[in-house]
Amino acid sequence: MNAPLSSLRRPLPDGFLAALQTRCGAAVTTTQATLDHHGKDESWHGTAAPDVVVYPQSTQDVSDIVRLCASHCVPVIAFGAGTSLEGHVLAIQGGVCMDMTRMNRVCAIHVEDLDVTVEAGVTRKQLNRELHTSGLFFPIDPGADATLAGMAATRASGTNAVRYGTMRENVLGLTAVLADASIVTTGGRARKSSAGYDLTRLLVGSEGTLGIITELTVKLYPQPEAIAAAVCAFPSVDAAVRTVIQTIQIGVPIARCELLDALTIAAVNRHSKLSLREAPMLFCEFHGTKAGVAEQSKMVQDIAREHGGMDFEWATLQEERSRLWQARHDAYPACLQLRPGSRAVATDVCVPISRLAECIAATNEDIARASMPIALFGHVGDGNFHLVILVDPENSADLEEGQAVNTRVVMRALEMNGTCTGEHGIGFGKMDFLEMELGSALPAMRAIKRALDPQNILNPGKVVLPDEPCRMA
Amino acid sequence: MNAPLSSLRRPLPDGFLAALQTRCGAAVTTTQATLDHHGKDESWHGTAAPDVVVYPQSTQDVSDIVRLCASHCVPVIAFGAGTSLEGHVLAIQGGVCMDMTRMNRVCAIHVEDLDVTVEAGVTRKQLNRELHTSGLFFPIDPGADATLAGMAATRASGTNAVRYGTMRENVLGLTAVLADASIVTTGGRARKSSAGYDLTRLLVGSEGTLGIITELTVKLYPQPEAIAAAVCAFPSVDAAVRTVIQTIQIGVPIARCELLDALTIAAVNRHSKLSLREAPMLFCEFHGTKAGVAEQSKMVQDIAREHGGMDFEWATLQEERSRLWQARHDAYPACLQLRPGSRAVATDVCVPISRLAECIAATNEDIARASMPIALFGHVGDGNFHLVILVDPENSADLEEGQAVNTRVVMRALEMNGTCTGEHGIGFGKMDFLEMELGSALPAMRAIKRALDPQNILNPGKVVLPDEPCRMA
Repeated sequence: MNAPLSSLRRPLPDGFLAALQTRCGAAVTTTQATLDHHGKDESWHGTAAPDVVVYPQSTQDVSDIVRLCASHCVPVIAFGAGTSLEGHVLAIQGGVCMDMTRMNRVCAIHVEDLDVTVEAGVTRKQLNRELHTSGLFFPIDPGADATLAGMAATRASGTNAVRYGTMRENVLGLTAVLADASIVTTGGRARKSSAGYDLTRLLVGSEGTLGIITELTVKLYPQPEAIAAAVCAFPSVDAAVRTVIQTIQIGVPIARCELLDALTIAAVNRHSKLSLREAPMLFCEFHGTKAGVAEQSKMVQDIAREHGGMDFEWATLQEERSRLWQARHDAYPACLQLRPGSRAVATDVCVPISRLAECIAATNEDIARASMPIALFGHVGDGNFHLVILVDPENSADLEEGQAVNTRVVMRALEMNGTCTGEHGIGFGKMDFLEMELGSALPAMRAIKRALDPQNILNPGKVVLPDEPCRMA
Repeated sequence: MNAPLSSLRRPLPDGFLAALQTRCGAAVTTTQATLDHHGKDESWHGTAAPDVVVYPQSTQDVSDIVRLCASHCVPVIAFGAGTSLEGHVLAIQGGVCMDMTRMNRVCAIHVEDLDVTVEAGVTRKQLNRELHTSGLFFPIDPGADATLAGMAATRASGTNAVRYGTMRENVLGLTAVLADASIVTTGGRARKSSAGYDLTRLLVGSEGTLGIITELTVKLYPQPEAIAAAVCAFPSVDAAVRTVIQTIQIGVPIARCELLDALTIAAVNRHSKLSLREAPMLFCEFHGTKAGVAEQSKMVQDIAREHGGMDFEWATLQEERSRLWQARHDAYPACLQLRPGSRAVATDVCVPISRLAECIAATNEDIARASMPIALFGHVGDGNFHLVILVDPENSADLEEGQAVNTRVVMRALEMNGTCTGEHGIGFGKMDFLEMELGSALPAMRAIKRALDPQNILNPGKVVLPDEPCRMA
């Protein structure tokens, strides 16, 4: 499907590494194990190691490194937790990997304004730990414990998006280093603004190809007075999906609403030592006042019963709730264990909710016909679901079949006016799909890429290809 | 402050008007009254009439007109309801005004998906009328009955934004014509997507300078089971503001939360024939289930009492509620009547809510020192408020003083990490402030403008100035 990863590499220019070491000292490493670690993500896409890894500690460091890369025309790839799923961080043209994890300070918690400013490498769990005593929380939770800048760069979401939105809605402003090494601030801390082009939203989801996010301010939310979580088993995936659709359509402000099919439940039971009924299940959570939570959960339980759902089983204690949601977040690694040694082709379509039942039903036919195990789960309240297609990465027939299933699911979603990716992003794995989905807009995307990164040094080969390769200005 | 508007005009090139008439026939007009009507908005900025007004009826019409303008290097300005407040629609370089109001079809209401696709010229009131029997509504409500594309282009909001967000959060995708006449679709109808650069959000707020929005899909919301609206008088603006701050900080999902100072109430009473107590007031609205609304309103009433607020006066009947909110929406024209013949310099700052009381208190000192009447009201739940500074447009001392007040308020907001414009946009009236607020990001904004509109034909002279004037490619 893609050219061999190694074919695009170019050697580092003479003098570059020495100049980088002069500037950054011990923060530079070329140890092979470190390079390899930084040349892959959690997807089935292979490894493409960078030539060098550097650990900046400040926005100024990032700017200086980018300036050096620009003057030598060397690719530079920002790296957070390395948990992307479409090859986003692979150094397919070689160059510098900038590991942002040492920029991990929570800079300022503004309790009264319900926002926080963090450095790029702060992870979502770290942030919530540091918020613990503030009475506030940050809701966006992709499965992995990703970094906030990585989440912004892929426009990530997770289980709470149905109520709290995605990174698109929750980043107030950010600081980024552009390809010319300039340091830009794209917004302040006002809740809304009509001041100029929305560079915040342009950088959110740009996957490190337009700028490197070094700091960001995100919205926080008051810890709800009451939280209730429940699981509910259904006679079929369709019954569970129809429950969700009705819940969304009548406007219940449900906080989390996750579908797991029977195979996923089996995987989760084994991985997280739970004993859930191995049937299609919804994991739900309700946030609000005590009365509000009681009212919401009664409404959803009533809808579920209409569709043959069982009684809610409540996770009452916070510890039980944490265990439940950790299990949900671990669904991806849990599924990988269904077939030892496998990697996953992960689909990520999102469709208008009116088409969700039909989309999942047709996809279940694909699953039934496939030769490998395929688990289905996802954020169905948003119309977003994943397949975890378990492939043997050494077996090309397997890879081909996995990709064919992925393609069929994407084509189906696009026909339904949906998207090929609800939250994982394009990386280089979905560039063809992006063209199918938004082909008319691609020339504009390329023009923006060329305007902001004329040398094509920022994470080259991802999202869109400008017309020309990485080159000296 | 600005160069005389007439100095930037260039004559239409030979043959252009004839070519436009050949393509568009009777949809082209050069009647002076029509030109004048399209050369001004509702602000104090003067008039700069276009050379010609054309009324497209389809996206293809828009594309053809833009192609003609591009080939003759003629400026083209999209015009909706003409209710902008910073000179957005003034034809300061002459050219073609494209009046979008004949593109006023509601294309498709997707009740089950809670979204609707409309043509550019549909107004917010028209949309809500057409939604009336669907059980859904569209919440974004700037004071004027603006067009949806105009609202998108200025990233508008209004009284419901504190709960439902602004145009930034509520546009799912759009169709636009770019400067090269290409027709692009920036997104489908999925609730979330990580597919490529967020051109939707880049066009939202770009004020017709990067593309002309011809169609858009926006989110809708179920009509709440219960709605309650109330007004509450306070002993001081500060007491009202502190009530709002506390309401937001504890996370009450209030739907509307508007402050009007005593002078604004006097204007509203006179304009809308109401008899509200002439004191600082909050206009509040609560949406939810019956129990939820009762709970929310009790919480806010309790907070208000702590700050010396009076008992809520309820607008119980829908008719009373409509009258109340229409009066609120008419605050701007109502204030204009406080000084017959005046125009308004409208401020629009938005600050983090923790600084709102301090910002308004200092601003009230500016008001007390000013020689003209100045009303204060706004969307304080978002930290956004307006001054309506009533100036005699023929009196330069007046204009200068009004602008000086505006500048002081903006500088104060920027010091507080706020924005010069919460919802009105930059137009050409706030370009200097944009530079103060986001100076580091301006080169990137200019680069994007040059990349997407290399001839500088789309609404030239607004938001940002590319380095070069409108020119042949």
